[in-house]
Amino acid sequence: MNLSDVPLRPGSAELLPVRGVRALQAFDNRDWVAVEVPVALEFNGIAHAVMLATPTDLADFALGFALSEGILLGRGELYGVEEAYAPEGITLTLEVASAAFARLKARRRTMAGRTGCGLCGTESLAHVTRALPPLPEGPALSTRAVARGMRELASMQVLQKVTGAVHAAAWCSAEGEALLVREDVGRHNALDKLVGALARSSVDASTGFIAVTSRASFEMVQKTVAAGVPLLAAVSASTSLATAIAEDTGLTLAGFVRGDDLVIYTHPWRLNGLPANA
Amino acid sequence: MNLSDVPLRPGSAELLPVRGVRALQAFDNRDWVAVEVPVALEFNGIAHAVMLATPTDLADFALGFALSEGILLGRGELYGVEEAYAPEGITLTLEVASAAFARLKARRRTMAGRTGCGLCGTESLAHVTRALPPLPEGPALSTRAVARGMRELASMQVLQKVTGAVHAAAWCSAEGEALLVREDVGRHNALDKLVGALARSSVDASTGFIAVTSRASFEMVQKTVAAGVPLLAAVSASTSLATAIAEDTGLTLAGFVRGDDLVIYTHPWRLNGLPANA
Repeated sequence: MNLSDVPLRPGSAELLPVRGVRALQAFDNRDWVAVEVPVALEFNGIAHAVMLATPTDLADFALGFALSEGILLGRGELYGVEEAYAPEGITLTLEVASAAFARLKARRRTMAGRTGCGLCGTESLAHVTRALPPLPEGPALSTRAVARGMRELASMQVLQKVTGAVHAAAWCSAEGEALLVREDVGRHNALDKLVGALARSSVDASTGFIAVTSRASFEMVQKTVAAGVPLLAAVSASTSLATAIAEDTGLTLAGFVRGDDLVIYTHPWRLNGLPANA
Repeated sequence: MNLSDVPLRPGSAELLPVRGVRALQAFDNRDWVAVEVPVALEFNGIAHAVMLATPTDLADFALGFALSEGILLGRGELYGVEEAYAPEGITLTLEVASAAFARLKARRRTMAGRTGCGLCGTESLAHVTRALPPLPEGPALSTRAVARGMRELASMQVLQKVTGAVHAAAWCSAEGEALLVREDVGRHNALDKLVGALARSSVDASTGFIAVTSRASFEMVQKTVAAGVPLLAAVSASTSLATAIAEDTGLTLAGFVRGDDLVIYTHPWRLNGLPANA
């Protein structure tokens, strides 16, 4: 797909007057900035969290966030999402199955009267890591496919192209075709949107891999494993904790995917260390 | 300062075996990754938040986080910080003045029985933005000084140089000399560490500006204004909300600071649109 074929999503960017400076010389200019809006998530009428996000693909975001956080165990537990717009931000109201709501309430009880921060709803060290289902072996993958997927992702970053301010996440087939792409000012949000889009699609997420334009930090790894995707490819580096969790959960974690170069931090067997078709 | 003069901080990076791939050809290699650890913050014995952070400058981080979040109104309200290390992470216990603790408890009551997420302890839209003190006019600044500050910051990113995975924030004098630099896997953490280091130093933060290696998102703007610093310079773009808050609070916000080029989103009068000494 060619970037010029893809229109900018309504509401994703604003054109603002700015002062440009080139070689220290100032001039008046206009510049596109990515839209960043507070987005509140409510489950069955109970406020849960506020994220700063780009207001596109909000139904994907709501579903993906709930799946990534383990509030929903499957798409079928989400009955509907309503979007309410107000001057101070957007509220997404998720109607979820009673089993999911009970799960959320039980989790809240363990942190009654406390505030969570940084990690979603987490205020003690014991809650940082959580049990994740084992990853399937998945299809044969190749470094060539990973390199191709990252190239396709780069070519499909419509909002990034005009604003320079947003991250993106793509789900790619085993051959490296980027079939689903989502963008957001937040890298976690972009991945949550992708996870939601995957769940709403007919795609078996375990048959491909995810490519992201950011680092591979701990939470990016956790979200990828929770989505049942066996490989995460990142433009930038991994961290110590991300690498440890990837090792433990069986995720193949690749970083610094640039051109035909990359670094494989964990479980290189999925890539066989070989070029595709070798 | 020359980067080679600055030693890597103990505990900030780990050397791991990896599989390298160059031009699709695999080879065994070793690579430095940035250390990312869960860091829990407790105030007078009460758990408050867990952040994923690089375990350096933790006393700065504790103070800066508490100031940025408005829990402390000044350095004098913090009586001490204890660091406890466990296999699952690090706990920072802050002993704070009773007035600060009462402030924290009052804030918690407004969200009793709920979880916070994304924004620290925030679960409804009304709590996203908060009143900030008016910014001082500050010293005369120049685009040349901003460009110099960003260059100096880049040259002082010791951990980034070996890991490629971390952000940095610097406080620069009005002349653009980067006098304090902090690094972290999280861009918000790097800025909080810098804010804490500033508060612990004898520097008047309002006499210079802050340079960061990331985007200028809403929270980066809010932290800079809360620290009383009149200009924020970012390597990458601003967002719609960051620009709006900067406009409202009187912050001069500059983005895409690369070489001698930049974009001034708000309050360009501080820079006069002119080269230094012009």
